[in-house]
Amino acid sequence: MHKVIFDTDPGVDDAMALLFLHRHPEIELLGVTTVFGNVGVDLTTRNAQFLHREWEITAPVAKGAGATLDQTRTDDCAASVVHGADGLGNIGVPDVVEWPLDPRPAYQFIIDTVRENPGEVTLIAVGRMTNLALAVQADPEFAGLVKEVIVMGGAFDVNGNVTPAAEANIHGDPEAADLIFITPWKVTIVGLDVTMKTIMSSQDLAEMVAAGDKSVKLLSDLSQYYIDFYRNRVGIDGMAVHDSTACVYLVRPDLFTVRSGPVRVVCGGLADGETIQAPDSGRKFLGTAWDGQPSQWACTGVQAQSVLEVIRAAIVEQRASAA
Amino acid sequence: MHKVIFDTDPGVDDAMALLFLHRHPEIELLGVTTVFGNVGVDLTTRNAQFLHREWEITAPVAKGAGATLDQTRTDDCAASVVHGADGLGNIGVPDVVEWPLDPRPAYQFIIDTVRENPGEVTLIAVGRMTNLALAVQADPEFAGLVKEVIVMGGAFDVNGNVTPAAEANIHGDPEAADLIFITPWKVTIVGLDVTMKTIMSSQDLAEMVAAGDKSVKLLSDLSQYYIDFYRNRVGIDGMAVHDSTACVYLVRPDLFTVRSGPVRVVCGGLADGETIQAPDSGRKFLGTAWDGQPSQWACTGVQAQSVLEVIRAAIVEQRASAA
Repeated sequence: MHKVIFDTDPGVDDAMALLFLHRHPEIELLGVTTVFGNVGVDLTTRNAQFLHREWEITAPVAKGAGATLDQTRTDDCAASVVHGADGLGNIGVPDVVEWPLDPRPAYQFIIDTVRENPGEVTLIAVGRMTNLALAVQADPEFAGLVKEVIVMGGAFDVNGNVTPAAEANIHGDPEAADLIFITPWKVTIVGLDVTMKTIMSSQDLAEMVAAGDKSVKLLSDLSQYYIDFYRNRVGIDGMAVHDSTACVYLVRPDLFTVRSGPVRVVCGGLADGETIQAPDSGRKFLGTAWDGQPSQWACTGVQAQSVLEVIRAAIVEQRASAA
Repeated sequence: MHKVIFDTDPGVDDAMALLFLHRHPEIELLGVTTVFGNVGVDLTTRNAQFLHREWEITAPVAKGAGATLDQTRTDDCAASVVHGADGLGNIGVPDVVEWPLDPRPAYQFIIDTVRENPGEVTLIAVGRMTNLALAVQADPEFAGLVKEVIVMGGAFDVNGNVTPAAEANIHGDPEAADLIFITPWKVTIVGLDVTMKTIMSSQDLAEMVAAGDKSVKLLSDLSQYYIDFYRNRVGIDGMAVHDSTACVYLVRPDLFTVRSGPVRVVCGGLADGETIQAPDSGRKFLGTAWDGQPSQWACTGVQAQSVLEVIRAAIVEQRASAA
């Protein structure tokens, strides 16, 4: 069993990833931590509570950061155009959802849970990396006790989705992401290079609804606004399943091609939030910001149809233990 | 006949490009302007004079900029490790070469020559873009009289060669390059995406010497230091013919794949000197530095063997009119 803490800003594709993690038979969800991003942290937390209630997920929910690591930055949470004003496709989530919250802030929950399970926990972060950065700052040594970090974010050999240079999760807190990438733990970065190739069509989703239970129906309902965004603005009849793709990496890394090398994040200016890797296999540079930093793993290729099948199987063919 | 002004910082691969322009039967070289870069401007100018004398090139030489457009930048001309301390492979160029210089600074020579040949002149710039930027600043309207600009520089979908983000010509004067790319004229950018695929092997060069005259022998002699750099530092037995590749684009654009879209240059920070394009065919962004800027043309693919053959043919099979 893969023990996982899921750091998330639900968010439509976050919701699918949550259901995937909940239902995949080889994954044990130790907790869910929320962060601002697709919408503000009050809404992403409320949405996590809502999804836990609807899907009967018992893993704890801990509320996380509502602002960037560098608090001089200003942020507009502009992704509501993608995810709806409520972050879940404007399906009518109640303003308040009665569901318990862990009393600790997300970064402390992460530290404590990792320390209780040394060497066993994978952190999957699919929003801005603020909670992880706060945890590293508060307890640098805890990083050595994490099994692996998997993040959805960044754009290496392709354009970004907020600017030509930058992807939304990294652009939303560049200083936090840079800290995560230069911390000496193993980070695998599942960015737009692969997630924009992993498109679930609206037909695929309809077939999952036909084969699935009411949880899948809810997932489909809250995804329609997001699919409309892709249809009208990106020209795709379907949706990039960014966050689920990152989760699939946990159980099926063989479906991805990765490239190793230090990764830094541009902080400020035209390319604010851009991820840049100095590949270990490439030209050697001297006197740059990449010198001496740990190699991390950027995904550059993906077997997209197989990833989609792994998602479908976990979500539709519910785990035996839940029956 | 293509009328050309060649803006250059010789430089070993600059020397090959100069001989190519001089000998290609469909090119009329109207002038050569020098700029700092591979070495300082006194040396690049001396080198241009030397090559003109040795190769009996009668086109005028005008000395150009010795410092970046933004004079608060500091620069170390670090490319001597690639081109030799003298910029021409340490072959023993005399300290002073008696050869006439145009009395005008390069930017003024460029403006005047373009105004004398309105709509007919292609500017091929293979060093830092400082002279072109000074010309645009001094006479913005002259840009509308230029036929086309072809630059060697930048790295779009590949890493740079000075840092993981930036290529040397752009990194050497980012503000100048950015101005060139946002000026409303047609710029084609021949960057590392294609020039690092266009490798002339040491064997290729030896065969050109065997088939050529003493000018080719000199070209080969001054290229050996550069080839040693590629052999020892890049792991290639040969040389990337960056600047000649840009010149081949002038006569054989059909050998290249290009992508249109506004291009901006990162000025300052981690990605200083990085070129970033917002492709016209890609996702639309709002509120970014690319909004409303003219589309330029970035080379993304090349038929490298054909480019090498075009170079060989022009340099070895001398133009009939020179016989």
